[in-house]
Amino acid sequence: MSEHTVSAYDEELTEMAGKVAEMGGLAEKAFADAVSALVSRDLDLAKTTIAQDERLDTLHQEVEAKLIEMIARRQPMGQDLREITAATRIANDLERVGDLAKNVAKRAIAIDNSLGSKKLAIGVEHMTELALSQLKQVLDAYTRKDPEAAKRVQEADAEVDAIYTSLFRELLTYMMEDPRVITQCVHLLFCAKNIERIGDHATNIAENVFYMVTGERLPEERTKLDETTSVS
Amino acid sequence: MSEHTVSAYDEELTEMAGKVAEMGGLAEKAFADAVSALVSRDLDLAKTTIAQDERLDTLHQEVEAKLIEMIARRQPMGQDLREITAATRIANDLERVGDLAKNVAKRAIAIDNSLGSKKLAIGVEHMTELALSQLKQVLDAYTRKDPEAAKRVQEADAEVDAIYTSLFRELLTYMMEDPRVITQCVHLLFCAKNIERIGDHATNIAENVFYMVTGERLPEERTKLDETTSVS
Repeated sequence: MSEHTVSAYDEELTEMAGKVAEMGGLAEKAFADAVSALVSRDLDLAKTTIAQDERLDTLHQEVEAKLIEMIARRQPMGQDLREITAATRIANDLERVGDLAKNVAKRAIAIDNSLGSKKLAIGVEHMTELALSQLKQVLDAYTRKDPEAAKRVQEADAEVDAIYTSLFRELLTYMMEDPRVITQCVHLLFCAKNIERIGDHATNIAENVFYMVTGERLPEERTKLDETTSVS
Repeated sequence: MSEHTVSAYDEELTEMAGKVAEMGGLAEKAFADAVSALVSRDLDLAKTTIAQDERLDTLHQEVEAKLIEMIARRQPMGQDLREITAATRIANDLERVGDLAKNVAKRAIAIDNSLGSKKLAIGVEHMTELALSQLKQVLDAYTRKDPEAAKRVQEADAEVDAIYTSLFRELLTYMMEDPRVITQCVHLLFCAKNIERIGDHATNIAENVFYMVTGERLPEERTKLDETTSVS
């Protein structure tokens, strides 16, 4: 293979990584906007967030088709193959993050306004800050090809899970104390679960970044655990 | 390309479709066992179901690696490319079905035994029958390359969604009437949501089967709607 070809290939890989990073930017924004719409009861923002998910889906389809085409044309091996495989998987995770954000935005619309849901949504906001920071950090680790940063993201996921577990219990307590808040608390529980899952996707991405750069699997620090399924 | 090569390729494609169908069998079994464990309070079955998800994950990784390798080696176009792309996406959906089934099995363990949860779980069982039948039918459509059967699966998803919406409301009512059942009803709500999502994955698979065989996109019959996010 001539140097010219190799360099054109590198350019193509960089371009694909750029598209995946663009998906990451859209997914981050959707997630932040959805929770913001939920907490500040901003229905217009919720609607915009729902509508914009289509852009992320379209971008995902483009990226997927382009990556398959690259595999067929370039027959990549080793590091190149790892980069393309990682891009495919990361794009999948980001598309799922967009779906989860969209679902939070839908619930922002569904939640009844009248019963102080704003107070109840604060816990969700705190959890979001952490999960969003995880997502930003892992996308940064992807762009910089930094396995150590990816490893830190994986390690910090336990914190998102811990907040989720505590929020789950708190929301159950509210529901038991005042049946009038049951419906909105159920929607908030689903929102919290969606955010916890966004944290899981950040972890998946971290594992893919680590493997892409090093060719080694990141050891699982812990058994993945949603503690709310093991407590009654 | 010699006829021998073409026929070796066909064999490879058939073998891959077989592996995907094997994933489908495991995903179906996990789903059926998880709900059975939930409804009949069978903790051993729940534990076995959780443990066996690893097999599905391993198979998924094998399938994914093999498909990438096939794209690189065969540089497929047209129908062949569609078959490989479809297999990749269907394998993804089946891996997710396995995760959702595992989550139901975890909740079967978490749900408190003492408060008549068996009665409450009946609605979940009914929803499962339908979603499971959808999954079976779409895997059959994939094996038989039958686009009409795939289309019917897509159309029937609205029914799973309708049962979910009615179950959601029913569980909320129970919670409002008796705060002692709140925790278990919340777990059942999450189980119901997981089953509804399994229905969505069956629909995704249906869309991929249709596209794989015909090269055309299945028209979306309806806006995908979880009505519980638009009602309070």
